[in-house]
Amino acid sequence: MNQIYYLGIPGSNSYTAAKNYFRSQDNLTGVETFAAIFQKVTIDTSSYGIIPIENTLGGSVVENYDLFDRFDVWISGEYYLKFENHLLAMPTNDAPEDRLEKINRVYSHPQPLLQCTRFFEKHPWMKKKAYLDTARAAQYVSGVQDPSLAAIANQDAAELFHLDIIKKNISDNPEANYTRFFIISSQKQDVPDANRASLLFTVPHVPGSLVRILQTFADNHINLVKIESRPIQKKPFEYTFHIDIAWEKDQEDQIEKLLKKFKKNTQTQKVLGFYKAASLPVQ
Amino acid sequence: MNQIYYLGIPGSNSYTAAKNYFRSQDNLTGVETFAAIFQKVTIDTSSYGIIPIENTLGGSVVENYDLFDRFDVWISGEYYLKFENHLLAMPTNDAPEDRLEKINRVYSHPQPLLQCTRFFEKHPWMKKKAYLDTARAAQYVSGVQDPSLAAIANQDAAELFHLDIIKKNISDNPEANYTRFFIISSQKQDVPDANRASLLFTVPHVPGSLVRILQTFADNHINLVKIESRPIQKKPFEYTFHIDIAWEKDQEDQIEKLLKKFKKNTQTQKVLGFYKAASLPVQ
Repeated sequence: MNQIYYLGIPGSNSYTAAKNYFRSQDNLTGVETFAAIFQKVTIDTSSYGIIPIENTLGGSVVENYDLFDRFDVWISGEYYLKFENHLLAMPTNDAPEDRLEKINRVYSHPQPLLQCTRFFEKHPWMKKKAYLDTARAAQYVSGVQDPSLAAIANQDAAELFHLDIIKKNISDNPEANYTRFFIISSQKQDVPDANRASLLFTVPHVPGSLVRILQTFADNHINLVKIESRPIQKKPFEYTFHIDIAWEKDQEDQIEKLLKKFKKNTQTQKVLGFYKAASLPVQ
Repeated sequence: MNQIYYLGIPGSNSYTAAKNYFRSQDNLTGVETFAAIFQKVTIDTSSYGIIPIENTLGGSVVENYDLFDRFDVWISGEYYLKFENHLLAMPTNDAPEDRLEKINRVYSHPQPLLQCTRFFEKHPWMKKKAYLDTARAAQYVSGVQDPSLAAIANQDAAELFHLDIIKKNISDNPEANYTRFFIISSQKQDVPDANRASLLFTVPHVPGSLVRILQTFADNHINLVKIESRPIQKKPFEYTFHIDIAWEKDQEDQIEKLLKKFKKNTQTQKVLGFYKAASLPVQ
């Protein structure tokens, strides 16, 4: 069976994304860093990895773009996960609405703790406590078995660590928090009906060179789904660009020709993969 | 005196950026969220705020771009801060090199803890402990006065909380970690010799509309320093773009004319400010 590598432990957001995308919780293996995911899929050529690439609140996970530069792995799919920030605590006989006043310490990663600022303003007796990640925060609260402790984590974490959901979606902006994941592997995957590609490139240091590349795609009605520039380390004022392009079924035949042009106009370039566009999570 | 608002407590990276940029540690006021910084500068019209906008490892701080949409504040300056991840502990009579083996718990924000993965692999007896931010981790270690505890934080935190630097720059990639800050205020600042501008805009939903805007700048040899697209909430497949442009002294007169063209070609637009380009930190 193909192993699937993700960041963290069962109950992490990457775990949930992997479980949903592959429609199975078997063969999921958690590791501790993004680099470890790239290493694992490079060594175990039948395996897959799942990595977050951008978040609506946090922006691009640039570390993973850098890892695409270092490792030869392919993107074969994308997946959008809506992040849930639920307040979890050990089960008791009290009704959930009566439990809030007894909770005085809330564990989570600092990022979700910050995203729930208004909740903490309304419940000033709750003290924010940082933890390495949301799943481990839930695991800790579950282990201590103290009804005055809570964690902010997702529904999978609640189920896996036998915690009750005291209050759902307590973040300030619960509708706005979703993350895009890429599915990666060391083998080039032939994805039928692929309609998206991710490209990484640098351009010659002359004015207008980026525009020339984008123009090639625009002239052919190929949609630019994402664009981002990023300074190159130790080369101030030079940039790596990431773009994602999308096309319709009847444009498939043009893509190969356009990518040849793209290669001619760029200084360095890497096609990260062809894949099917995922739908956004239901808002 | 003009108040200056920053994120966190004295010893935070935002504190250090504010102190360095304004060359003073007076009138610095720490607050708990980025939104609070925007609120403060909007109410106190003589004040400034300092906010991180992008980090070489973490990418753009998209939350702050969203706040530019919600609040009418101006960018009047930029500053680059190199992030330091030093290992700090309470002073003892032992030599720093003898102390590493006695340290068994290291407190910091999860992000720097992750950035020091190789250090923790080499010192496997040290347990990573999450804290809300680096400065508060240093404050905690300083308060406990236990030589087996350490924090990962910067030099200002070491000085403010009377901790020794046991080991400098312990992150995997110490040269690569710098953050760009914007200086904001509610009053439009007239910056002499401004040579950069930050623009936020949306384009009509027709192919090639982004390219047309970039072309205007390229045709006039105006440098594109940064570009980033970001999906608009609840409008899938529509995007907000952030670009930063830079120009030379002899191009100053063109900018106003070009911005008029820019306004005509964009659907919505906001000029976030004109400012002087900061130099990158010495590597």
